[in-house]
Amino acid sequence: MPHMHINLFIQGRGHHEAAWRHPKSSALPLTDIRYTVELAQKAEASLFDSIFLADVLGLWNDVESTPFNWLEPITALAAVAMATRRIGLIATCSTTYTEPYNLARQFASLDHISGGRAGWNIVTTWSPQAGANFGHIGQVGHADRYERAEEFMTVVKGLWDSWADDAVLDDRAGGRYADRTRVKAIDHKGPHFPVVGPLNMPRAPQGRPVFVQAGSSDTGKKFAARHAEAVFTAHLDQGAAKAFYADLKGLVAAEGRDPRHVVILPGINPVIGSTEAEAARYEAELNELSDPEVGRHRLSQRFGGHDFSQLPLDAPLSVDDFPDPSKNEASRSRTEAVVALVKKERPTLRQLLAKLAGARGHFTAAGSPEMIADIMQDWFETGAADGFNLMPPVLPHQLDLFISEVVPLLRKRGLFRDAYEGETLRSHFGLSRPVGWI
Amino acid sequence: MPHMHINLFIQGRGHHEAAWRHPKSSALPLTDIRYTVELAQKAEASLFDSIFLADVLGLWNDVESTPFNWLEPITALAAVAMATRRIGLIATCSTTYTEPYNLARQFASLDHISGGRAGWNIVTTWSPQAGANFGHIGQVGHADRYERAEEFMTVVKGLWDSWADDAVLDDRAGGRYADRTRVKAIDHKGPHFPVVGPLNMPRAPQGRPVFVQAGSSDTGKKFAARHAEAVFTAHLDQGAAKAFYADLKGLVAAEGRDPRHVVILPGINPVIGSTEAEAARYEAELNELSDPEVGRHRLSQRFGGHDFSQLPLDAPLSVDDFPDPSKNEASRSRTEAVVALVKKERPTLRQLLAKLAGARGHFTAAGSPEMIADIMQDWFETGAADGFNLMPPVLPHQLDLFISEVVPLLRKRGLFRDAYEGETLRSHFGLSRPVGWI
Repeated sequence: MPHMHINLFIQGRGHHEAAWRHPKSSALPLTDIRYTVELAQKAEASLFDSIFLADVLGLWNDVESTPFNWLEPITALAAVAMATRRIGLIATCSTTYTEPYNLARQFASLDHISGGRAGWNIVTTWSPQAGANFGHIGQVGHADRYERAEEFMTVVKGLWDSWADDAVLDDRAGGRYADRTRVKAIDHKGPHFPVVGPLNMPRAPQGRPVFVQAGSSDTGKKFAARHAEAVFTAHLDQGAAKAFYADLKGLVAAEGRDPRHVVILPGINPVIGSTEAEAARYEAELNELSDPEVGRHRLSQRFGGHDFSQLPLDAPLSVDDFPDPSKNEASRSRTEAVVALVKKERPTLRQLLAKLAGARGHFTAAGSPEMIADIMQDWFETGAADGFNLMPPVLPHQLDLFISEVVPLLRKRGLFRDAYEGETLRSHFGLSRPVGWI
Repeated sequence: MPHMHINLFIQGRGHHEAAWRHPKSSALPLTDIRYTVELAQKAEASLFDSIFLADVLGLWNDVESTPFNWLEPITALAAVAMATRRIGLIATCSTTYTEPYNLARQFASLDHISGGRAGWNIVTTWSPQAGANFGHIGQVGHADRYERAEEFMTVVKGLWDSWADDAVLDDRAGGRYADRTRVKAIDHKGPHFPVVGPLNMPRAPQGRPVFVQAGSSDTGKKFAARHAEAVFTAHLDQGAAKAFYADLKGLVAAEGRDPRHVVILPGINPVIGSTEAEAARYEAELNELSDPEVGRHRLSQRFGGHDFSQLPLDAPLSVDDFPDPSKNEASRSRTEAVVALVKKERPTLRQLLAKLAGARGHFTAAGSPEMIADIMQDWFETGAADGFNLMPPVLPHQLDLFISEVVPLLRKRGLFRDAYEGETLRSHFGLSRPVGWI
């Protein structure tokens, strides 16, 4: 039986919005690469599959209250590659605001540098800030973004496969460095990205980086079903996670792909204490460091700038307080989840914001190590998850607790690996290497 | 008196076109980051100012005969940053085929990761291959490229200065991560790159990466005079280097800048032997490994695809055998230098190709360590150079010889440093940190 996969999602000083103020979060500046390196090394020592850096192409948070990941993901992970040996390295990069030739080269380069550990979290990027920072491209609507993304995938897959695996000869005596008949142009003639190729680099150890995706709109899910090999997803409860899992695996099969070759990793934000009461205290402590007005501002951003300023903090919410999520260009599925929760639980705004402060709409659970391991086992065994996108609320402290207290339980139950199966991210995720050009 | 600067230009397995076949060039694949790391560590142990990676946005060489640098420069140098502590890291990146917001982030990130060691070799990129790989941008003419580059510089300088140095507070108790009044939009409204900003990253240790430039057309020199802090340049003899040096320093002064704040580094390709005869044998050995037909193909590329296939190898050349270099869109100054050499020396094609095989139009000298040190001292003391862009013909072997035999001579003569003056590339080059936003 396969075991579960664990990816460490590194963001700020932890995923709780107040993590940066917590006394047990890192004292290093967020621009210090040692911060990312130390977390990656800890995750690798515990045999996690990968680490992941999200990205935003603009300054979308209020810098007063909310630090982000300050280093650019590809440069950061190229550096982390040198300080680790096995763990996968997943960088976010946009199909709307990056040139396909540049992206293909940088990921191939990261894969060479890391010896086959690169993963690409494919995003189509929607935010007014990103559009404004790429004014000559501008803001691109939801349908157009995915149309461009499809063509982008055709181009970059072609580029990554443009050198046959046996193209490099390095024959010093014969004077032939490479066999030119084993390197070919792609001659792509599309409306958005006409690219002749070939790539100017031999094929990477993994052939292509592992494709990761997190879009959860219908279009996003169809895109994932066609291309993704791992999927990050956000659910506020297990029921929603199971429905998504079944839906996406079905879509993958409908595309003629093997559903086992798409690893589904819902976000989990575990607040760990030695007892349930201690975990609850930790969570309360974090919530006390949060400013509800910061949360209100974030909620507004999530809903495309909608004005929530008139809503009282302590009255029950109704769905009429929210704009229609199906019209949301930014993160449709997360806004749908918020509205579904409001409909079901009728929380006050203060309660809703506390819930979202933990991990921005991902599943949050406070409890003892046994409770967290039980939840993970249950999700894994009931078709809600192939593993988890681990989002510790405070870094490094809650990662340390997860590693020392939860991982041994998972391992004892036979749910997590004792040793890496191979050397590449593909081998960790149980994926085969794309055959490329035979 | 200031000492000379030395940059190690890493390309292929050395700058001679046959280096990759030489028994003393590296046995590592060119996609192996350890190759670049080992060279960088050697250069750092000898207190060189920097290393430099060139770049081409397409596969412009014939892969059978001519391996290039296979790793993409920014990812490669982010990795090298982790294995070095002091040496500067200069990456080539294009203003024509990169988004200014992406470029600004990646260089700021490299500067943070390396603790202030990033340099940007600014290129406007001309090659039919690059144009074909960025088909939606297409090929951009010489004048247009520089017009776009000017606007690009305005944007990226603005982005790098968009955070005041004191913007980050990290005040956990007070709940203020940054002072939002010390982070500002740039609101650039230009024809090519409308960008609102700000950058989504605190200001880098050096403020901005060190600006390096190598364009030598009139437009390129004016661009360098306005923006460059270090200039790579190629001359086939000392006279041409002196003329260029005087010309460029004059242009810098005419722009109202201090000429001492632009460090001019001509390429030098020293073939070192313990005696002059041994050096000559080494050079002959390399030339024997070269195929004149490979050289003919390269010459054709340099002259924009001009057909030289009918020229005999062993008859004296005349300037009429070459197209007008002033019409060359790719590398005008190098083609001008070739035509000037033909006019002056009337070499055969075979002789010309041997000369260019060494370092593609840079200055080549074969001799004993004393002879090489003498040449470098002479160029440095007679206003031909502030230092050198060192292009060893075979890597690592000729770098090892330079370090063990030539560097001690330069140091004994007081021409090269005994210790790094500071921690950043700016400090090595004697440049001040841009003040930014006060």
